[in-house]
Amino acid sequence: MKAQRVEMFVSPSATPADTSGLQALADAGKIKPDTLVALVGKTEGTGAHDDWGRVWADVALREWTAKFLGVPVDEVARHVIFVLSGGCPGVITPHIAAVAREWVDAPGSSDGEDKRLVVGRAGSEAIAPEEVGRMGMIRKVAEATREAMKDAGLTDPKDVHLVMVKVPGLTTASIKDAESRGKTVVSHDLTFGPEGAGVYANDGAALGVAMALGEVPESSLSDEVVRRNWDLYSEVAMTSSGGEKRHGEVVVFGNSSQSVSPLRIGHAVTRDFIDAEGVRSALRSAGLRFEDGLPDEADLNRLVHVFAKSVIPGSDQVRGRRITLLDDAHAYEIGKALGGMLVASVTGRTTNYVSGGERNSHQGPPGGNIVAAVVRIEED
Amino acid sequence: MKAQRVEMFVSPSATPADTSGLQALADAGKIKPDTLVALVGKTEGTGAHDDWGRVWADVALREWTAKFLGVPVDEVARHVIFVLSGGCPGVITPHIAAVAREWVDAPGSSDGEDKRLVVGRAGSEAIAPEEVGRMGMIRKVAEATREAMKDAGLTDPKDVHLVMVKVPGLTTASIKDAESRGKTVVSHDLTFGPEGAGVYANDGAALGVAMALGEVPESSLSDEVVRRNWDLYSEVAMTSSGGEKRHGEVVVFGNSSQSVSPLRIGHAVTRDFIDAEGVRSALRSAGLRFEDGLPDEADLNRLVHVFAKSVIPGSDQVRGRRITLLDDAHAYEIGKALGGMLVASVTGRTTNYVSGGERNSHQGPPGGNIVAAVVRIEED
Amino acid sequence: MKAQRVEMFVSPSATPADTSGLQALADAGKIKPDTLVALVGKTEGTGAHDDWGRVWADVALREWTAKFLGVPVDEVARHVIFVLSGGCPGVITPHIAAVAREWVDAPGSSDGEDKRLVVGRAGSEAIAPEEVGRMGMIRKVAEATREAMKDAGLTDPKDVHLVMVKVPGLTTASIKDAESRGKTVVSHDLTFGPEGAGVYANDGAALGVAMALGEVPESSLSDEVVRRNWDLYSEVAMTSSGGEKRHGEVVVFGNSSQSVSPLRIGHAVTRDFIDAEGVRSALRSAGLRFEDGLPDEADLNRLVHVFAKSVIPGSDQVRGRRITLLDDAHAYEIGKALGGMLVASVTGRTTNYVSGGERNSHQGPPGGNIVAAVVRIEED
Amino acid sequence: MKAQRVEMFVSPSATPADTSGLQALADAGKIKPDTLVALVGKTEGTGAHDDWGRVWADVALREWTAKFLGVPVDEVARHVIFVLSGGCPGVITPHIAAVAREWVDAPGSSDGEDKRLVVGRAGSEAIAPEEVGRMGMIRKVAEATREAMKDAGLTDPKDVHLVMVKVPGLTTASIKDAESRGKTVVSHDLTFGPEGAGVYANDGAALGVAMALGEVPESSLSDEVVRRNWDLYSEVAMTSSGGEKRHGEVVVFGNSSQSVSPLRIGHAVTRDFIDAEGVRSALRSAGLRFEDGLPDEADLNRLVHVFAKSVIPGSDQVRGRRITLLDDAHAYEIGKALGGMLVASVTGRTTNYVSGGERNSHQGPPGGNIVAAVVRIEED
Repeated sequence: MKAQRVEMFVSPSATPADTSGLQALADAGKIKPDTLVALVGKTEGTGAHDDWGRVWADVALREWTAKFLGVPVDEVARHVIFVLSGGCPGVITPHIAAVAREWVDAPGSSDGEDKRLVVGRAGSEAIAPEEVGRMGMIRKVAEATREAMKDAGLTDPKDVHLVMVKVPGLTTASIKDAESRGKTVVSHDLTFGPEGAGVYANDGAALGVAMALGEVPESSLSDEVVRRNWDLYSEVAMTSSGGEKRHGEVVVFGNSSQSVSPLRIGHAVTRDFIDAEGVRSALRSAGLRFEDGLPDEADLNRLVHVFAKSVIPGSDQVRGRRITLLDDAHAYEIGKALGGMLVASVTGRTTNYVSGGERNSHQGPPGGNIVAAVVRIEED
Repeated sequence: MKAQRVEMFVSPSATPADTSGLQALADAGKIKPDTLVALVGKTEGTGAHDDWGRVWADVALREWTAKFLGVPVDEVARHVIFVLSGGCPGVITPHIAAVAREWVDAPGSSDGEDKRLVVGRAGSEAIAPEEVGRMGMIRKVAEATREAMKDAGLTDPKDVHLVMVKVPGLTTASIKDAESRGKTVVSHDLTFGPEGAGVYANDGAALGVAMALGEVPESSLSDEVVRRNWDLYSEVAMTSSGGEKRHGEVVVFGNSSQSVSPLRIGHAVTRDFIDAEGVRSALRSAGLRFEDGLPDEADLNRLVHVFAKSVIPGSDQVRGRRITLLDDAHAYEIGKALGGMLVASVTGRTTNYVSGGERNSHQGPPGGNIVAAVVRIEED
Repeated sequence: MKAQRVEMFVSPSATPADTSGLQALADAGKIKPDTLVALVGKTEGTGAHDDWGRVWADVALREWTAKFLGVPVDEVARHVIFVLSGGCPGVITPHIAAVAREWVDAPGSSDGEDKRLVVGRAGSEAIAPEEVGRMGMIRKVAEATREAMKDAGLTDPKDVHLVMVKVPGLTTASIKDAESRGKTVVSHDLTFGPEGAGVYANDGAALGVAMALGEVPESSLSDEVVRRNWDLYSEVAMTSSGGEKRHGEVVVFGNSSQSVSPLRIGHAVTRDFIDAEGVRSALRSAGLRFEDGLPDEADLNRLVHVFAKSVIPGSDQVRGRRITLLDDAHAYEIGKALGGMLVASVTGRTTNYVSGGERNSHQGPPGGNIVAAVVRIEED
Repeated sequence: MKAQRVEMFVSPSATPADTSGLQALADAGKIKPDTLVALVGKTEGTGAHDDWGRVWADVALREWTAKFLGVPVDEVARHVIFVLSGGCPGVITPHIAAVAREWVDAPGSSDGEDKRLVVGRAGSEAIAPEEVGRMGMIRKVAEATREAMKDAGLTDPKDVHLVMVKVPGLTTASIKDAESRGKTVVSHDLTFGPEGAGVYANDGAALGVAMALGEVPESSLSDEVVRRNWDLYSEVAMTSSGGEKRHGEVVVFGNSSQSVSPLRIGHAVTRDFIDAEGVRSALRSAGLRFEDGLPDEADLNRLVHVFAKSVIPGSDQVRGRRITLLDDAHAYEIGKALGGMLVASVTGRTTNYVSGGERNSHQGPPGGNIVAAVVRIEED
């Protein structure tokens, strides 16, 4: 019987186009052309939609990967999923996490209690512009999430701890296309502002994950609830959108008793924007044992990576006191930076994947945010 | 024998000009015209030198205080020291802390172990523009710090936990004045940039405190070490500067066995920019007892206020990993916001006094920052 | 017969709260309690919705005006209309223009060719949140515009050269109110972003002016065209919105042969974002004579004031070449600053009223902007 | 006899890495490996020192040029000088101007009145960190400027209309190097702030040009006058600096009666920040004839390119009125944008090279800026 063995390697980047960390992993045989399944990273730059740091990183990493795999650049996406999140404000170290999956002969399933990391991927059907941020997108992302779970060998949604999704956004061209066919689109605002197409796309994708995992019943979902009913949300979906895409891409991370990985993943949600205990809960969920207090150095040495959202609360109150973040012209950047500090102050390191900055989301509960952690259970 | 009884009341502000919290304190008899000694607050706005939120707050608070004291507006400064720090990015709630000091008959000194909060104030001699950020300023601030300690009834520098200082900065006019007299000035850059007059003034003041408290021997000090030798610093000085001033103002907070205050102050320094444990150490220093882990609700209910600096490290490394904060066009605002998160994630509240954003300082050790905390020891 | 005699006085402001220019006008008898009808100004600050420079200016100017008129502060709005536009980026000098109107005995109407400045004001009916940015607002602003024309003594829309309008925007509270009554609102985005409530309110007001003046036939108007059909626009409407208001306020400036003012107003539109000739056309429209080339010093000495919008084009092309302004995180501020430069480079002065920064508007044609100019025809 | 024939081709860039315009020029035979002497461009991005748009453009353009020339990437700099200025705020179209120079047989010198465009280049001696912004740099840039004039075949400084210079700046490493050798450096501030190393380097280079051209006598120059005595300046130097360089590079543009180019260059300075007439003077200087008024379409069709600085005035007054630009946190970006508008409003196009944003400079007179223009005198 074949079992997954998943590894995750985190390399800091000296510049957006720095591929030396990946090359070192390749040289050391830690990633191979047939095991590399995903590159997930934070790139330095403005974090805006025209963030040239992120664009340059994307170009350079795809070129490197094409050479590594021995395929043309435009075929890289069939083999490796890229999730690059732009903007490293504050204490977020630019880095790339390489996810490698190999299939190894396993003597049989482990004890059901000792579940280990698995990863699965799937593409969605093409998503039309008129479906962005609406039920069309929600259903197609839900279907792709189910397929990615199958690819991961996961059947119980409780074993899913992180679902990263990339979906098409809207562009001037795609809006024109939809309207020329007599369709409407969810927004004409192409930004990540509160009524922007970018957040509608992200939130449609999040609700798709929530539907697939049963976090939200399909009967509660409709075009009207997207970015209106914040009680509907996923606790494990981290989503992003880009105008250039036509299909959704889904990567599911979970734990399985079939896995022989040395790693385990867990997750939790923060209850509000300053909730460091929520971050600690995520570490515990992944297998670090520090029941009442703080992780110590030995614990933190076993921590492989943290993935966190830092969505800005829609309210101007945190624990009953007013903050002015919603009024801040730089709220997008500051909101992301604050999530980076919340995580770093707990993990004692700055190489954390923290994305966000938008206001309100179906990614995580109202006011709170999703934190997933990967921990090394055994040494290689 | 007369002993100090010091109280501190923290009121959130709904707008920069909101004096309703002070009025409520006055109405309740908690502050009186002859007990109000200082107003220390964070005001919402840009945090820049032309932050109209801060300027408006200053005007409105002085007007209110003048009426409260029954004195003309331009005499308010003789009675009450104002320290208003502009900019509440992220999770810093705009607020005003009123410090009230009364002299009460005391039966005799308490047990030397049970020291309580005292406060003292002093003005410095006039500081000429050519002295700003140089030995002239350092010596005059040191002298005023010694006087303020005397006013507080403090003799041992170890009992001093927070020294807030306001000094004159440079202006186009004061530079012209100095140069017309054949003098030079420390900088022609009027900003808070790394060679700006603003940070030279603040750092001259910090070294003055360090000299008075013996944290830095006078023999180590010279014009040349200011903003050059970062090994010289104070662990308790929080300083600011303004072009409009001619004298320095110093407020010393410490603990004394002569005090009958219900409050105690303590302080610590963070070892680097993400060191939440440094914040917890400050709470312990002030008297909260949570030896190994985290403060609980009962502990935090006794916390009256936190004062923290959030100076940006001069290095681009935090615990061996690169961050891009030094390159960030919004580093000043983000740096301050990050300090706010570090404190709030520990205190569980957002009404913390956090100033900073500048790069490097003699306020606190290289890379680390000062945190002072005031804790209620006994209920009224 | 009574005729209007309108004067306009422009005073630079040293700070947001500077009322010394107004006091000097009052002391000189140029403005009187019964002649002051409007204060229109640019205030320094961020230009954002929580611009404390603008808020402080509003408070200080209303207090001054209340004293000047001898009425309580909350009655000032009945007598004097305030239009304060926040943000003076670049080469826009903070200033206040005081508009004074007196009724004088006139021997009879002047030659129809020699029309002079008149001003008229009107308030609209209360505008409900569900009407903001929709036909409800459009019709009510249209009605108030007609009344303000009547107050000005204007009957021909061709004689109207500038209509300044302030209308209610949406707030969290007013949205809640509308939805609790089963109504919908035009946007949940409270910003001035492309789908923000702020621009919907401004554009509803602009279409109301366009309807009143016959620039757009009522039959072309519906909820659906607002911020969708940019071929519908006014060439004279400059509008703004604020959450705190419940009624619209309209000030109409035009020329009348009944007026004995020493001033005349004119206007033009720029054909695109760099069209300096459009600014010159506005000066010519108001009566400066420089048929083919450039105004000279004598011409410019007769120029009293310029009012200009600087709406950012919705296209990323100017005269066939790509610009990146739409992608700029600071587009709002830069867009306003660029309008200030376009005007200043023609007028040779920086005390121009320039508002804008938003993307697309029914205030002016697609890509172009409105410019109105007031010129002194005869010396006092 | 061999004469220069210089051409300049301006191509808009669709992205920072867009080389399609250059490829089209190459394909059309307009630039050849042995005629391409310089690429001068504006790249989109933040304009800050870590502007990834500019860095990516530099990488991509050097790679393209290496292939075009058939040399390794690290030898490109020996053949082609790159001047890439980051940041296209407002109405500045990202573009690349390719400068091609060929040597053709010429029948003899033209009429001395009909001077045409020539170009010359030279590298300076290595400039040590301790020389940056001081006499060492000034003298070495002066020497290189004289050599570049020689390369251009120019002897009379009056024939020089534009000198573009790139010099080494300071870095953390180079400061350490200097100080380890017992030397001091001009600043520890690595920004382009008013006391930053970046502006000292730029201004040292500008004074070097001024010295070479006799605009400033050597006897007036000393370390002390740099960024202190603004009466010393060049009217033709546009300089930039980068930490990675060790030598200065100089490109001189001028007119010569020996040239058979179809182009001519001219220049002028604006008298202040809103002086559109200064821009028009530059066009006239290059050979457009519109004596009193405005250039018409036929004139502007002959305009090949404009190079302009947009240095922010050190005073807060423009023509006697206060502006707030010096206080603006975004002054650097806005200052550059305003220069772009001033030029575009005159040229009627947005593909202008406009750099600047810093405060005060020896590039141009106090408050004013340099504008150079290249005009086509005869059709190909």
